[in-house]
Amino acid sequence: MTESDVVAGSEALSTEIAALVVGVRARQPRAIGRAISLIEDRRHSRGQLIGELYSHIGRARVIGITGPPGAGKSTLVDRLTRRLREDDETVGILAVDPTSPFSGGAILGDRIRMQNLYTDPGVFIRSMATRGAMGGVTPATHDAVDVLDAAGFDWVLVETVGVGQDEVDIVRSVETVLLVTVPGLGDDIQAIKAGIMEIADVFVINKADRDGVERTYRDLQMMVSMDEGTARRPQILKAVAVRNEGIEEILSAVRDHRRWLRESGELAGRRRRHLRLRVENILKEHVLAMAEESGGLESALERGLNALSDPYAVADSVIRGVLRRHAPSAQRAETEE
Amino acid sequence: MTESDVVAGSEALSTEIAALVVGVRARQPRAIGRAISLIEDRRHSRGQLIGELYSHIGRARVIGITGPPGAGKSTLVDRLTRRLREDDETVGILAVDPTSPFSGGAILGDRIRMQNLYTDPGVFIRSMATRGAMGGVTPATHDAVDVLDAAGFDWVLVETVGVGQDEVDIVRSVETVLLVTVPGLGDDIQAIKAGIMEIADVFVINKADRDGVERTYRDLQMMVSMDEGTARRPQILKAVAVRNEGIEEILSAVRDHRRWLRESGELAGRRRRHLRLRVENILKEHVLAMAEESGGLESALERGLNALSDPYAVADSVIRGVLRRHAPSAQRAETEE
Repeated sequence: MTESDVVAGSEALSTEIAALVVGVRARQPRAIGRAISLIEDRRHSRGQLIGELYSHIGRARVIGITGPPGAGKSTLVDRLTRRLREDDETVGILAVDPTSPFSGGAILGDRIRMQNLYTDPGVFIRSMATRGAMGGVTPATHDAVDVLDAAGFDWVLVETVGVGQDEVDIVRSVETVLLVTVPGLGDDIQAIKAGIMEIADVFVINKADRDGVERTYRDLQMMVSMDEGTARRPQILKAVAVRNEGIEEILSAVRDHRRWLRESGELAGRRRRHLRLRVENILKEHVLAMAEESGGLESALERGLNALSDPYAVADSVIRGVLRRHAPSAQRAETEE
Repeated sequence: MTESDVVAGSEALSTEIAALVVGVRARQPRAIGRAISLIEDRRHSRGQLIGELYSHIGRARVIGITGPPGAGKSTLVDRLTRRLREDDETVGILAVDPTSPFSGGAILGDRIRMQNLYTDPGVFIRSMATRGAMGGVTPATHDAVDVLDAAGFDWVLVETVGVGQDEVDIVRSVETVLLVTVPGLGDDIQAIKAGIMEIADVFVINKADRDGVERTYRDLQMMVSMDEGTARRPQILKAVAVRNEGIEEILSAVRDHRRWLRESGELAGRRRRHLRLRVENILKEHVLAMAEESGGLESALERGLNALSDPYAVADSVIRGVLRRHAPSAQRAETEE
């Protein structure tokens, strides 16, 4: 990677990216898969890829499905997808789950359940790696949504486990957030979900044939009525996804919410917050790439460890190095604009 | 904030910081609390504060206590603290929990249970806010550990809910990670914890008077024996924290682990990874501060929204602006060094 690559990202369109763009636009599963892999690896050319696809996005309905483990999110995604396919609508699915050699079993179970959708060319399913990616899973998921949108899928469903700031950031960027819960979850689980509860657009109480459904319903009702910060009170729906009960109502609530987003002007605000979040994440990735370039970060760490320097002092010396190295090329780029 | 503040962080030591440093070193609860608040607010002077305290750190034993909700982490922290106090060892506690208007109840319960430790001057307890902080909870927690270490506490206990990348990053920076679990947690919970399981130094099966403890023990044993990546096979202990059972064994395992860290040379590697993580987080905070300075980020977002630019293009224009603005001052700083 040269200096100007990092700073300007303005090299000529590579043959590889050009071919990927054509393949993605033709909705070829192999090209879509390769595009998302390139994004997950945070390869530098991801910026070019997104830049080329960007004029084709904005048509898909992007829905986040989140909630605690065991709430039945994968089953719900499966049933929503089957219903949409009956109307010949195409569906791209991104499953954002913790992965680990240890958790292979649990994750695999969900994936196998969805397996029989794989043969349908109107459906694309992809698991996103949640660890190991340099910039974290959030920027990669945002970029992958763009890929599926540009590929022409009518719907993009993003399934996440509803815990942690990453998850909040991921679903914050979708149009409509479904929070899936089940009757009788304890207070502790409620506390974990707290961050994500506040950004739910539609609540779904799944497994609503279980005891305690009315109490969960009342609790959620009380909760949403207490929250004066939201522009629109979220709908609360009951479902038994495994028996296909409540699926129509969920899709109808999603459509209502989408209409409200457009008519209220709320959509513009969400787009702005989403762009800001993505730009901030890219800036963070940029500064680390610049810091690591030509070993600047490593040598600063080495000096810092030897001199017992505090992390702020080490970071200052890295930033100064980056500014010294990149300033001339930034000034050249300016005069060329 | 002026340009040189952001880049160089080299202004004269303020009276406020100088007073805080004196108060922290004297282990005054009020000064410690104010220092941590300044850190949580990510005030610019946090770098100065840490820089001044840094020569006094490295003496405390820093232990991470993590695990799923309901595993009894707070009770365990309480019992460990009482046991350490019997030997007149001082304890600083940082509780990193999800906070929300909605989860006030659950969190409050834990805090009240620990309340009766508050009157002991040898104990300092602080909840860290997990949201709203500009740079996230991880950098703030690392800095707060430094404050408690420099204040002279013999032990620093960091309690987190074991989910999400943030939590992994927080406990990754401690010396010894206790992973607290309970008999009979389902596969789904296991999957969530997966990321954190791999960094556990000691497993504690709490509530070991419950059914299923032997099965959980065998499962953990199988898991740690399968993992060939770790330098040292983690110990697996049983405890009933609420009845004070297993507390001695846990402290003894922690001391064993600390000895091994030093004798094996592993400590140097951990220190390096920790410094790297902290420097990277500070770099990310720096780049956002520089981008927001004088409205550069806002105006780039505005232009990007109007022109339908992709996030990578917007980020590129922000980075160029930052480099143009800061290059001269960085070069000046270099000649002054």
